[in-house]
Amino acid sequence: MSPDEPGRPLAASNSRVKAARKLARRSERAEQQLFLADGAKAVEGALSVDGCVVELFATTTAVGQYADLLAAADVTLVDDRAMAGLSDSVNPAGVVAVCRFVDVPLSSLAGRAESTPALWVICADVRDPGNAGTVIRTADAAGADAVVLAGSSVDAYNPKTVRATVGSLFHLPIVVEPDPVAAIEAARAAGLTVLATTGGGSVDLYDADLSGPTAWLFGNEAHGLPPELVALADHQVAIPIHGRAESLNLSTAAAICLYSSARAHRS
Amino acid sequence: MSPDEPGRPLAASNSRVKAARKLARRSERAEQQLFLADGAKAVEGALSVDGCVVELFATTTAVGQYADLLAAADVTLVDDRAMAGLSDSVNPAGVVAVCRFVDVPLSSLAGRAESTPALWVICADVRDPGNAGTVIRTADAAGADAVVLAGSSVDAYNPKTVRATVGSLFHLPIVVEPDPVAAIEAARAAGLTVLATTGGGSVDLYDADLSGPTAWLFGNEAHGLPPELVALADHQVAIPIHGRAESLNLSTAAAICLYSSARAHRS
Repeated sequence: MSPDEPGRPLAASNSRVKAARKLARRSERAEQQLFLADGAKAVEGALSVDGCVVELFATTTAVGQYADLLAAADVTLVDDRAMAGLSDSVNPAGVVAVCRFVDVPLSSLAGRAESTPALWVICADVRDPGNAGTVIRTADAAGADAVVLAGSSVDAYNPKTVRATVGSLFHLPIVVEPDPVAAIEAARAAGLTVLATTGGGSVDLYDADLSGPTAWLFGNEAHGLPPELVALADHQVAIPIHGRAESLNLSTAAAICLYSSARAHRS
Repeated sequence: MSPDEPGRPLAASNSRVKAARKLARRSERAEQQLFLADGAKAVEGALSVDGCVVELFATTTAVGQYADLLAAADVTLVDDRAMAGLSDSVNPAGVVAVCRFVDVPLSSLAGRAESTPALWVICADVRDPGNAGTVIRTADAAGADAVVLAGSSVDAYNPKTVRATVGSLFHLPIVVEPDPVAAIEAARAAGLTVLATTGGGSVDLYDADLSGPTAWLFGNEAHGLPPELVALADHQVAIPIHGRAESLNLSTAAAICLYSSARAHRS
């Protein structure tokens, strides 16, 4: 009896499953220009992007559970052990998509027509996958037009990053730009005011004029923004600290700034 | 040669080190009413609370590195292996304090004198240690007067929670209250308006009147707030979602709400 008999769920030893599992490694993702979207929300996002999904793996249980989501999709059945190997999660949802990279070039951001003033997020050297993913999710919720992962930021396609975006990776343009200066210059060229978030910022967030097109610039979790990038920003903005905390977590700081902009853009 | 010779760093086999290491377990913490504060910021917070620190372990390297912090403290030197066992971190900072529980009873919150309108956070059944810790850190930054971990919320003294607070656990009153109804009733008795955060909230955050004393009520990461708690709130508030994200992460949602209150209380 062949383990790859038609209609029978593929085992972990199947060559397509093994090839997909290798995408857990960054080097393999870079070479193949493919990554894994794990879970129902991520797969839903991936399926919403034309031509993004290369192969969709699901367990028999998941096919029943996510019948609406998977109805129109071409599903490759896998067994539970194969799914456990493909999923980054302790409790796999049972559905994983092999996806083509979705990031777009920096140059594609200019000239987008917006109903509200443009809102970009530029992360310079953000290292924690969960933070990067949460920032992308929050940017999506706040109606931002783009997220740029600049400098030596964590890989946008790291499984933990993808998971933390809860599908938002597929909802708005993501740019991967090794040169943070190029990202800042693109924002300025597109007419955006660049606001650097720094603990010692000279403008209090509550006093900042957020009515126009804005790019928020966030730095590394431990070291913040380097002086040379701060110098390129139009203003340095500080979130007021009212209690005794020394600082805020990167993703909560981003949420406060982005929602301050979202609100200002709509009032 | 004795491993516990005076002046010589204690080894992992030392009985005090072993006893402290057991505090990684919730059952042991509950029995001893003690927990571990790991890292310089946490230890700094712990030392700022009178009588909180029972024993302070540090490596020889850390004593040099954190000379100012540890100058006035009674330090027990431990070797690197002992420290690795005490620390929850992959890269231990080299300083860990055994601390007495710092939570206060719900009844102690009433009647506090405030320079700005009171601001409380009530978390009902928050399960992720990182989320709970980040909410405490953000509440501190926003100048909140108390955080109540209600219902079956994660242990406030879980090492991951303590670490995510970055010292804020020691900066504002923390209440551990198994009964979320009691927490809501205490907030109302203290004259606070209770705002439940729900995706389908009837009041848009931007339209909510946040000028008065406010208690924000947050629910479980996966299931949100149960209807019976929502029913006890004065209003249901929704954070507007402008893009295609379905929801926000709990700690980012809390940051947006708390800073909306902090700003309203000061304008």
